Amino acid sequence: MNLVLLEPADYIGEDHVRLQGRRLEHVRKVHRAGIGDELRVGLINAKIGRGRIERIDDSALDMLVELDDEPPAKLPLRLVLALPRPKVLNRTIAAAVSMGISEIDLINSWRVEKAYWKSPRLSMENLQMQAILGLEQAGDTVLPKIRLHRLFTPFVREELPHLIKESLSLVAHPQATGALPRECGGSVVLAIGPEGGFIEQEVQTFCEIGFTVVSLGTRILRVETAVAYLIGRLF
Amino acid sequence: MNLVLLEPADYIGEDHVRLQGRRLEHVRKVHRAGIGDELRVGLINAKIGRGRIERIDDSALDMLVELDDEPPAKLPLRLVLALPRPKVLNRTIAAAVSMGISEIDLINSWRVEKAYWKSPRLSMENLQMQAILGLEQAGDTVLPKIRLHRLFTPFVREELPHLIKESLSLVAHPQATGALPRECGGSVVLAIGPEGGFIEQEVQTFCEIGFTVVSLGTRILRVETAVAYLIGRLF
Repeated sequence: MNLVLLEPADYIGEDHVRLQGRRLEHVRKVHRAGIGDELRVGLINAKIGRGRIERIDDSALDMLVELDDEPPAKLPLRLVLALPRPKVLNRTIAAAVSMGISEIDLINSWRVEKAYWKSPRLSMENLQMQAILGLEQAGDTVLPKIRLHRLFTPFVREELPHLIKESLSLVAHPQATGALPRECGGSVVLAIGPEGGFIEQEVQTFCEIGFTVVSLGTRILRVETAVAYLIGRLF
Repeated sequence: MNLVLLEPADYIGEDHVRLQGRRLEHVRKVHRAGIGDELRVGLINAKIGRGRIERIDDSALDMLVELDDEPPAKLPLRLVLALPRPKVLNRTIAAAVSMGISEIDLINSWRVEKAYWKSPRLSMENLQMQAILGLEQAGDTVLPKIRLHRLFTPFVREELPHLIKESLSLVAHPQATGALPRECGGSVVLAIGPEGGFIEQEVQTFCEIGFTVVSLGTRILRVETAVAYLIGRLF
């Protein structure tokens, strides 16, 4: 937690907040902070700054906060991701958000197991929690938009074409020969398949609406590793 | 497991191997493979190829293997990493190895908690297991060299200068203003600090032996995310 993320409901006065639960525990046990210490804080979807601890005990943490700085810029990147295994989903969302991705579409694909769509981790509550962990890691405050698309074709054929206008649109595919561009300058839409990759027909659909197929090289990377690698390369 | 990693002890004949334990379980439960199916296999520190299942049951998996291909090239990158928290260590090693890093030095730093050095995860057995998981993920066979340096100064002052010759040597530091290079061409030595970063004096020591201080931007990334991001950018 490199930034303590505040919600409007935390305010007990104009510049005073009171925290309990997870954030209190973290500040006590990990930061080991005491009265007078300053923490980096930020208000959700708003500015960042400093919080000065005025009280901290078993039951609550009170801070005087001053929020003057803008949160870090987001990446001009929309991530279209075949729904990962539940085990992998949480850390993928947190990692993507920590890097500044602000639009994430989780989509179906032939090789996504049907059972993944029934995971309790797909609740908006859990997805938001993972996003918050990513923001707290990176020092950001602005929640991403995460959407679920249980049907591949309606989303890719009907909705995605409107979302990729004026963006470089790339679909990562193990068998591709096209090299990845570097330092692309503008905005990017990046589609990444499930374990085993998108099937041929899905890749074809992406191509028909204007995507370019690119290779990530001969190594097969975990999805959160691949996303970080691609961001390093593209931006 | 995108490649089943074989050891010389698995051979029961010239081209025949027998697997039990973790790999057998994985092939049965995750690959759900049966007799006649082919799997991607590789011999540790040697070639990769295909294995054809000739027997698979509760007790063992027998394969006829043919290994003709070279493993993927390693990155010309040495990672000098302040020892991460034990919780983070395993996945950091696996991710680094999956990306093709073949030399990893885990070093001490002022902000590394002393207790981390007592973690059972630092056993060579565990480090090798994490490296194997990274190789199995990426489809590689060649084990990296992972070394532990419990004293910062002797390693950085006396040993590291011999290891960075003809390499671009970079130390990542939150307060740095130097931008990261791109597509550096040659070999790289990359030093990454602990949570909170290297202290000023440590950064100074790196600079004195020829390192350049670079910034990763305003976002604070988890170490395994930062490593993947840097690789995407540098290579």
